[in-house]
Amino acid sequence: MVTGHFISIEGGDGAGKTTQITLLADYIASTGREVVVTREPGGTPLGQQIRQALLHGEDLSARTEALLYSADRAHHAATVIRPALDRGATVITDRFIDSSVAYQGAARALGVDEIRELNNWAVNGLKPELTILLDLDPVIGAARVGTEKDRLESAGDAFHQRVRQTFLSMADAEPERFTVIDASGQIAAIAAEIRAAYERL
Amino acid sequence: MVTGHFISIEGGDGAGKTTQITLLADYIASTGREVVVTREPGGTPLGQQIRQALLHGEDLSARTEALLYSADRAHHAATVIRPALDRGATVITDRFIDSSVAYQGAARALGVDEIRELNNWAVNGLKPELTILLDLDPVIGAARVGTEKDRLESAGDAFHQRVRQTFLSMADAEPERFTVIDASGQIAAIAAEIRAAYERL
Repeated sequence: MVTGHFISIEGGDGAGKTTQITLLADYIASTGREVVVTREPGGTPLGQQIRQALLHGEDLSARTEALLYSADRAHHAATVIRPALDRGATVITDRFIDSSVAYQGAARALGVDEIRELNNWAVNGLKPELTILLDLDPVIGAARVGTEKDRLESAGDAFHQRVRQTFLSMADAEPERFTVIDASGQIAAIAAEIRAAYERL
Repeated sequence: MVTGHFISIEGGDGAGKTTQITLLADYIASTGREVVVTREPGGTPLGQQIRQALLHGEDLSARTEALLYSADRAHHAATVIRPALDRGATVITDRFIDSSVAYQGAARALGVDEIRELNNWAVNGLKPELTILLDLDPVIGAARVGTEKDRLESAGDAFHQRVRQTFLSMADAEPERFTVIDASGQIAAIAAEIRAAYERL
């Protein structure tokens, strides 16, 4: 059975992931291929329940939070991503395991290896063929999404800098999977770089 | 800091866990010690949300289910069990990690080692000092709780027999932690055996 391509887009807030996913999906659809765009935390009913628990419930420990994200991802992989790949569709996900590794593993200090192992188990080894990392200084990203600059200059900035460095280290460690793109440039130029990476698949 | 004792009670349905936990808790309280009785899936608001998702939501893959149970356990350990132990209380839990290993790891074939490792990570290594295994033939247990015998003689019976065998193997592997008690006997005699195991702590 021929399965579809699996692509993830990673990067901090304000890096332009949503815009670039739309452009890439439109391009793939224009070639006559089925494309499924999805995101984490999940677009499933369980994902909505988990999102509620994460955002509006009790204070949760870092481990509880990481396990809830991985449960959401297990369900997302089993019910959305794998079925689409199995019917030959190309799947583009806005965030995948690398986001958990960067945010929970490194920035919250739970351990990069533990978080990667946990999530690989959750999705039974499912892995993107191509990961586009939209790399951007978090200060610029925050300005784009309208976060107050003074908040960034406190602890928040260090957190987002650690997230960025962790993404870049992962890209260094797996150059055959990652394409790192400077997200401070023009939308059309970035879209062209992403299309070129997709065409190499 | 002196912490309290941590005791888990394990066994299949109908083995008498609830009755025996009440008797042990009454005995410990009668000696003037604080005792906290709890159960999994959890007695926390998050645990209730997870329980809803497990019982009344979509079809969930075995891995999603195991991750939701471990998220519930992580939260239960962090917000109920550890704080009670830290103030010196004795904690008795109706089921803990061994139940996940038996039900999800062995009986659902996700892998005993993987499920144990996942859950040990969830609770950051928290482990009962004493585990009472109330061992009972599942056919007798089912009769006690009123399950139809003909249902048991199909696949359900094999499942519960695997659960029982997995509990017994775990007890063999960790004799210093486990006390195995034949749960087919009289309530008072079983309670006396459990009290004796507690007194040896």
